[in-house]
Amino acid sequence: MQDDTPTRDRLVTTAATLFRRQGYHATGLAEILAEAGVPKGSLYHHFPDGKAGLAMAAADWTAAFLIRIIDDAFQPAPGYREGMAHYCNKLAKLFQLTDAANTCPISALLFDGPESDAFRGHADHVFQRLIDAVAGHAQRLGLPPDEAVAQAETLLIAVEGAWTLARARRDAAVLRSLPARLLPG
Amino acid sequence: MQDDTPTRDRLVTTAATLFRRQGYHATGLAEILAEAGVPKGSLYHHFPDGKAGLAMAAADWTAAFLIRIIDDAFQPAPGYREGMAHYCNKLAKLFQLTDAANTCPISALLFDGPESDAFRGHADHVFQRLIDAVAGHAQRLGLPPDEAVAQAETLLIAVEGAWTLARARRDAAVLRSLPARLLPG
Repeated sequence: MQDDTPTRDRLVTTAATLFRRQGYHATGLAEILAEAGVPKGSLYHHFPDGKAGLAMAAADWTAAFLIRIIDDAFQPAPGYREGMAHYCNKLAKLFQLTDAANTCPISALLFDGPESDAFRGHADHVFQRLIDAVAGHAQRLGLPPDEAVAQAETLLIAVEGAWTLARARRDAAVLRSLPARLLPG
Repeated sequence: MQDDTPTRDRLVTTAATLFRRQGYHATGLAEILAEAGVPKGSLYHHFPDGKAGLAMAAADWTAAFLIRIIDDAFQPAPGYREGMAHYCNKLAKLFQLTDAANTCPISALLFDGPESDAFRGHADHVFQRLIDAVAGHAQRLGLPPDEAVAQAETLLIAVEGAWTLARARRDAAVLRSLPARLLPG
């Protein structure tokens, strides 16, 4: 972690990493502060809600990170299928980089966080951003608007499920297999 | 909870319900014992590993419950597609019954439980039981063996992901939409 990273960013990326590795409940505020090297006063300055606000910011940060991966995968693709295959391969590499162990802060929030309407609503909002990003590329690559949205939703569903199975198996193969499963032939 | 339910069963179903509702970390042993009306000594008699052993038994119990739903859905179906549609509709009803809020103890274990090899390996084993159950029906209904396994894996992936999106949206529609997404036409 660079010392010159602004405090808020350092808090968010540290929280995202720890929630992903350990889950929401298992990660204490003191651990986040120690790892980020940030005093408690700064935390409440940036996040008056404390851990809950930090968790929502971590989910946003992860969504932005995933949207960059989506854009990188689909931008150079000649068609939707190729873009989807690039995306799944990039996710498989990411899965391997994170030691086949991590979940994403979006799911960690939804599954593990307090069962509040704000958390669930925020997860919905974040998933929708990812669906919109893929649907935009799908439409640009020639799919009719309805079909673009349906394909983007199916891809989000499949990626969430495949990541879970890949974690259980400690094997990214299932992520790479998604294009053949969803768009055979 | 019936008073005549054997102690072990009462512990397992109570733990499964609480882990599903609250997650692994947020559920304390004292809460499980109080809710099940079981003394601490009985817990360690049945589960020497305490909470971790109870979590694995809860995942097994949930798998058996889901396999009964799979059998009920596929047994009367004239073909794989119809069986899958029955299964997705039954899951959508189950989702609504549980107040659109719960996760399953299998995912709760994997995401929220201690990151131990035993937990992850057990999640893999439990997912495989569900895949085998669906693949058995698919083959009985005429799919070639390889295709039956591939379809069963795709369905598990899609159900895991769709349940997550349904929770975020508080809407079971995405579970009902799976047959059209996976086997269009």
